[in-house]
Amino acid sequence: MKEMMKKMALSGIATLFAEQMPFNQLLGIRVTHYDFERVELRIGMEGKLVGNPFHNILHGGVTASLLDVAGGMIVAASCLDELEDFSPSYLKERFSRLGTIDLRVDYLRPGRGTEFIATAHIIRSGSKVAVARMELHNEEGTHIAFGTGTYLVG
Amino acid sequence: MKEMMKKMALSGIATLFAEQMPFNQLLGIRVTHYDFERVELRIGMEGKLVGNPFHNILHGGVTASLLDVAGGMIVAASCLDELEDFSPSYLKERFSRLGTIDLRVDYLRPGRGTEFIATAHIIRSGSKVAVARMELHNEEGTHIAFGTGTYLVG
Amino acid sequence: MKEMMKKMALSGIATLFAEQMPFNQLLGIRVTHYDFERVELRIGMEGKLVGNPFHNILHGGVTASLLDVAGGMIVAASCLDELEDFSPSYLKERFSRLGTIDLRVDYLRPGRGTEFIATAHIIRSGSKVAVARMELHNEEGTHIAFGTGTYLVG
Amino acid sequence: MKEMMKKMALSGIATLFAEQMPFNQLLGIRVTHYDFERVELRIGMEGKLVGNPFHNILHGGVTASLLDVAGGMIVAASCLDELEDFSPSYLKERFSRLGTIDLRVDYLRPGRGTEFIATAHIIRSGSKVAVARMELHNEEGTHIAFGTGTYLVG
Repeated sequence: MKEMMKKMALSGIATLFAEQMPFNQLLGIRVTHYDFERVELRIGMEGKLVGNPFHNILHGGVTASLLDVAGGMIVAASCLDELEDFSPSYLKERFSRLGTIDLRVDYLRPGRGTEFIATAHIIRSGSKVAVARMELHNEEGTHIAFGTGTYLVG
Repeated sequence: MKEMMKKMALSGIATLFAEQMPFNQLLGIRVTHYDFERVELRIGMEGKLVGNPFHNILHGGVTASLLDVAGGMIVAASCLDELEDFSPSYLKERFSRLGTIDLRVDYLRPGRGTEFIATAHIIRSGSKVAVARMELHNEEGTHIAFGTGTYLVG
Repeated sequence: MKEMMKKMALSGIATLFAEQMPFNQLLGIRVTHYDFERVELRIGMEGKLVGNPFHNILHGGVTASLLDVAGGMIVAASCLDELEDFSPSYLKERFSRLGTIDLRVDYLRPGRGTEFIATAHIIRSGSKVAVARMELHNEEGTHIAFGTGTYLVG
Repeated sequence: MKEMMKKMALSGIATLFAEQMPFNQLLGIRVTHYDFERVELRIGMEGKLVGNPFHNILHGGVTASLLDVAGGMIVAASCLDELEDFSPSYLKERFSRLGTIDLRVDYLRPGRGTEFIATAHIIRSGSKVAVARMELHNEEGTHIAFGTGTYLVG
């Protein structure tokens, strides 16, 4: 029963991030995997997401945005895993307090590709603060960026 | 004469960032100050830039994007200040190699406001690598975020 | 009365950091200023603190250590400012939970000098997490490094 | 022949870091593995390296120092792998310019243990700048910290 509640809540969070956050919709973020261990987000390359027009490269801010969202979602899943109350009102109150404290992005290679895949996992969990590490690859598996985010949980 | 060339090149870089980079246009970035010491960028709050829809707060990725652009522009200005050749072909070749190596954003307060102002200044300059610090405030002067970016120059 | 208690507690924290933490003593850290707004620490250059022996430069790890300590102390002061209970047992319990979550150091110039001065101030305070910014200068005022630290407070 | 030169140079760098850098000796750093792919450093817990005396925990500055050294050494190895000239004078000139630009440490768990093992690998290599990721574990395999360092190479 509790497992089912948790899965429903997780599904609700995915919907919230992908369909109710305007900037995530502007970027075209889709949630292609989401459980308590790992999140995977995808966006397709589009002209409007380009930074450097001479080389048709993804804007570094899009990379940062995707990694921040992926980190936030895995932290949300990690919190969920420890909750006892899954009422919509409690969840909304709880997750509206979740926020990024700091984010580091290491840009490894130019953002070339037709699709970009962001993944995240938790490296430090806690009742007040959680830390996640994120990665961005393109559709060919080229590693484009690493990220690390510290999130306020409580 | 050289000073005039430098100012023209600076103006060209401002145009490049504000009018030729699609994602900067999507965000609505305007360059409201730009010299060799300091850059100031502004965007107006718009529905599409919202992250948290319950609280109408700027998406953290927009903050990261603005700070990255501000840092990159001040680094470009700083490079320009040391050049001898201002031909368009040289400038294009030179600045197409400029890129962000790493970016850290410290989120201080929720991104509430009607306008957001990003500023940047250089803390380490060099022929290969430069480091900039950036800040984001809203129209009331509330300090929303700090950033630090390391850029490849050469 | 409460102000006096707070000042005594602050003095106790300074003693704790400077005289009871073995690695701080090994580095020779002295607390030369400490109030609720600002901390200043100093160390003298010593042969054992050198990293690069060809150029007689302070080891980057010493810089990181000093900045982390300065950040932790200003966060401790900032917490103290909001406490109501100043009993030694409460203070000890409270501050033994204070810890660094993440630290970023930007190295600006080689660590040359006879004395190094670390300062810190708070950029984000809170009941769970605080963020501080730190600087390292030498005795001539040359700016050697910047730091940013995120600390668990609660 | 060239392979032998490279291995000798690598061995020289290990000696330089472990035996000629005073602060590394103060910390008791030993190089227990070093090739072009991976470095492993070890230190034993000692009273003088303690930060928090109530809990007998490694000072966060020691963690930062070890991670910075591990990152610098793997970057040095990575440069070496691309050199053609291995004369001592060239190597000395070349490596005296290698320096840390920025360092981020994520502290995951308290530094408890009798021995600490730092490892590093390259995530971005280049002729001007390289980026490394580092980890610190204790003798039981407990993961204590992550690090990311950006280094000036050229």
